[in-house]
Amino acid sequence: MAKRELGARNCLYPLPTVLVGALVKGRPNFITIAHVGIMDLQTVSLGMNKTHFTKAGIFENRTFSVNIPSQDMVEKTDYCGLVSGKTVDKSKLFKVFFGKLQTAPMIEECPVNMECRLVKTADFPAHDIFMGEVVATYCDESVLDDEGRLDYARLRPILFTMHDAGYWRLGERFADAWSVGKGLK
Amino acid sequence: MAKRELGARNCLYPLPTVLVGALVKGRPNFITIAHVGIMDLQTVSLGMNKTHFTKAGIFENRTFSVNIPSQDMVEKTDYCGLVSGKTVDKSKLFKVFFGKLQTAPMIEECPVNMECRLVKTADFPAHDIFMGEVVATYCDESVLDDEGRLDYARLRPILFTMHDAGYWRLGERFADAWSVGKGLK
Repeated sequence: MAKRELGARNCLYPLPTVLVGALVKGRPNFITIAHVGIMDLQTVSLGMNKTHFTKAGIFENRTFSVNIPSQDMVEKTDYCGLVSGKTVDKSKLFKVFFGKLQTAPMIEECPVNMECRLVKTADFPAHDIFMGEVVATYCDESVLDDEGRLDYARLRPILFTMHDAGYWRLGERFADAWSVGKGLK
Repeated sequence: MAKRELGARNCLYPLPTVLVGALVKGRPNFITIAHVGIMDLQTVSLGMNKTHFTKAGIFENRTFSVNIPSQDMVEKTDYCGLVSGKTVDKSKLFKVFFGKLQTAPMIEECPVNMECRLVKTADFPAHDIFMGEVVATYCDESVLDDEGRLDYARLRPILFTMHDAGYWRLGERFADAWSVGKGLK
């Protein structure tokens, strides 16, 4: 099989595009982030360029929110990554609500909202990594199935790839994890 | 809008399912991981339960590989998450090759392979987080477009959601990042 070497290219995509909320000097701010991840079952990570305005709010309050927009929100989602809270007041773009932590502003229009408590950071040359424990999750009824479970087909997340700067839809569910491979045992 | 509180539920999905390779006591081993992420542009993260056999190899060699399987490989991919290298020799499941680092076994059948050097770790109660710098990437010609860029539609990654233990397809690319929101400026 012919393999081509691409150089040192990070290809770990697609990742879900989220809107991260923080209170910066008392004002809600939102930034688009797709360099996200999961650490352990309760903990998410955000890779955020050190220049981002939002990071001051995360360091100050040690809280943030992760809001998952649906595809309908792609324009506003993209916009939040194009303009900085340094120069634009993004607090009026959305209906904002607060939960248990009181300092993690969440976006009502996003079907899924998680409020997080900062538990660890990691320092990279141009990026700060924020690792946050999810302490509460809020969900629109419209994206839950009959059993009350989040249905990603109804959520319709915005998936991101870097090299072609693309937003992608989620396709269909096609197999069961921890199951489809049992035949090889 | 009616929001339901789900408790402290991590909903940051879907994430790409990968096969992580490491040399454990000289033998290639592969483990299925979907709790992955991106730290900065060059660095990926893996959240790995402390019980996993593979972690000894990562700590020993300070290298690992991240192999992205296509949907065709869903059975073998799932299987690698069902059985442990403690009891099953997974080195014979795939054609294995090595690259620059020499201690990060890669899977030829996976269309994308990244070899990584361990740069940081983070310690969680039940999980070790491995953060690796991508040092070289290998790609099947069949998943590159005419300009030599990785095309995720051709790659057909296996996307994972936790609550329903689902494997999902990638849908179509529907918008340009850093662009579709410009109209709101």
